[in-house]
Amino acid sequence: MSFTTNKTIAMFGGKLLKLTHTAKSTSCDMNVNLYLPPQASSKKVPVLFWLSGLTCTPDNCTEKGFLQHAAAKKGIAIVYPDTSPRGLNIPGEDDAYDFGSAAGFFIDATQEPWNKGYNMYTYVTKELPEALWSSFKELDSSKVSLTGFSMGGHGALTLFLRNPTAYVSCSAFAPISNPSACQWGQKAFSGYFGEANKSKWAEHDATELVKKHRGPLELLIDVGTGDGFYKEGQLLPENFLAAAKESGNDKGVQLRFQPEYGHDHFFVASFADEHVEWHAKRLGVYDNADKQKL
Amino acid sequence: MSFTTNKTIAMFGGKLLKLTHTAKSTSCDMNVNLYLPPQASSKKVPVLFWLSGLTCTPDNCTEKGFLQHAAAKKGIAIVYPDTSPRGLNIPGEDDAYDFGSAAGFFIDATQEPWNKGYNMYTYVTKELPEALWSSFKELDSSKVSLTGFSMGGHGALTLFLRNPTAYVSCSAFAPISNPSACQWGQKAFSGYFGEANKSKWAEHDATELVKKHRGPLELLIDVGTGDGFYKEGQLLPENFLAAAKESGNDKGVQLRFQPEYGHDHFFVASFADEHVEWHAKRLGVYDNADKQKL
Repeated sequence: MSFTTNKTIAMFGGKLLKLTHTAKSTSCDMNVNLYLPPQASSKKVPVLFWLSGLTCTPDNCTEKGFLQHAAAKKGIAIVYPDTSPRGLNIPGEDDAYDFGSAAGFFIDATQEPWNKGYNMYTYVTKELPEALWSSFKELDSSKVSLTGFSMGGHGALTLFLRNPTAYVSCSAFAPISNPSACQWGQKAFSGYFGEANKSKWAEHDATELVKKHRGPLELLIDVGTGDGFYKEGQLLPENFLAAAKESGNDKGVQLRFQPEYGHDHFFVASFADEHVEWHAKRLGVYDNADKQKL
Repeated sequence: MSFTTNKTIAMFGGKLLKLTHTAKSTSCDMNVNLYLPPQASSKKVPVLFWLSGLTCTPDNCTEKGFLQHAAAKKGIAIVYPDTSPRGLNIPGEDDAYDFGSAAGFFIDATQEPWNKGYNMYTYVTKELPEALWSSFKELDSSKVSLTGFSMGGHGALTLFLRNPTAYVSCSAFAPISNPSACQWGQKAFSGYFGEANKSKWAEHDATELVKKHRGPLELLIDVGTGDGFYKEGQLLPENFLAAAKESGNDKGVQLRFQPEYGHDHFFVASFADEHVEWHAKRLGVYDNADKQKL
């Protein structure tokens, strides 16, 4: 389906499009922001998907994450999808910040009534990119990378590990790294998959997925040591790293603990340049300054 | 008076302090954000005051303006004051977005009842800096610059032109440049000064002030051509530039029209690096890369 452009905003020499389209997988209209860097006016550009955290709309990181700063320099488009379907009128969908609206967890729900539209996995991996490639010829569908924050970091890691050939690179900020073992993930997976359906849980748990990964694996993961959710055991990046080590998949995994940073967009903004530049290298995008350094 | 630190947030290698203090000039507790760059942990750093626009608290530009990105590199602290007193219980203070709360216009009101606390001129030029110098020894009180957006751009220009020796440099984003001649300014000045008190109006109108300026004058002013408030005549930067020309004060005034940019923090963020770097040069802050270029 084609997109309605609600607003076009100049930013860092490029433009930010606030879009809406009707999505089949989520059974509702979905908002999505698309940042097109200045380079997109004259050539196809690679695409970085940003997956947001609990409570977020497409706007939070668009306004506060600062990814556009480096994306404009490197010539990378950024897609900011929403975090769940909206307005399906499922009883209870708006009752909690960590389940239902704005808490889609990038899975396809199997449990009634959530399976009616809580299919953010299919939406983000298939329906949204296909719609974008069809409507925006300036996007290079062969060069797509993933990053995200918190629940969106879980999304980035799991979508990448489940589809290793679909994406060029993956990074994450404070990801929920082992959802089966933390309260947020247990609540979400119980609700969307059913409490007993542990094999389904494992299919969307980065720590389980990395154990079975075959082939080279590179990941850049930042976690703040002042992150309250890290401290209370919602993120568990150590579990992910241990699983990667056990399966021999840890060689290219950079897990960096950033002193004192919290669980907020100030943290994201502070390392946004580095993440975008890390993806840029893997997407084959080098600016003149980089070439001189190489 | 000393400050209460409500929150300390790691950002771009430095820290953001969310502060509150009791202010005499505004007759209330005032919130203010202070960004300390990493360099402040070992030496005194220059200070850039950011003055915000209508409807803003200290948080809007702190979260969306990204001045901290270049400030962290250059070693400059940023102060984000509020835009008015809050909660004085003056009838009507919360009724309009462009008068009263969050619309203090950086003047000292002379009209009852606003003169009870709508004294943002004294607060920003005297009480707040004195309180900061007394509490934060890492701030270099001899190197202070000003910038701001919209109503805050008006604040930056007028505070600088009224106190040319107090500040090292001044820049502005989409400033209300001739408030006596636009609806926003006329409403504010009528309310705070009285409709007939035109000499007082002129004391806080950048276009009037620049006519009387003596000595060198350098200003960097950006305005977006897609700015709806510019188009409807609320900003009038051409009036300011014409007045500067008439009085021979235009040589160092850079008024740049930025194609398609709007009246928003996306515009501010897009040129934040340039403004901070422009101030850095005038504040005598050069990093190693700059030195090589000079």
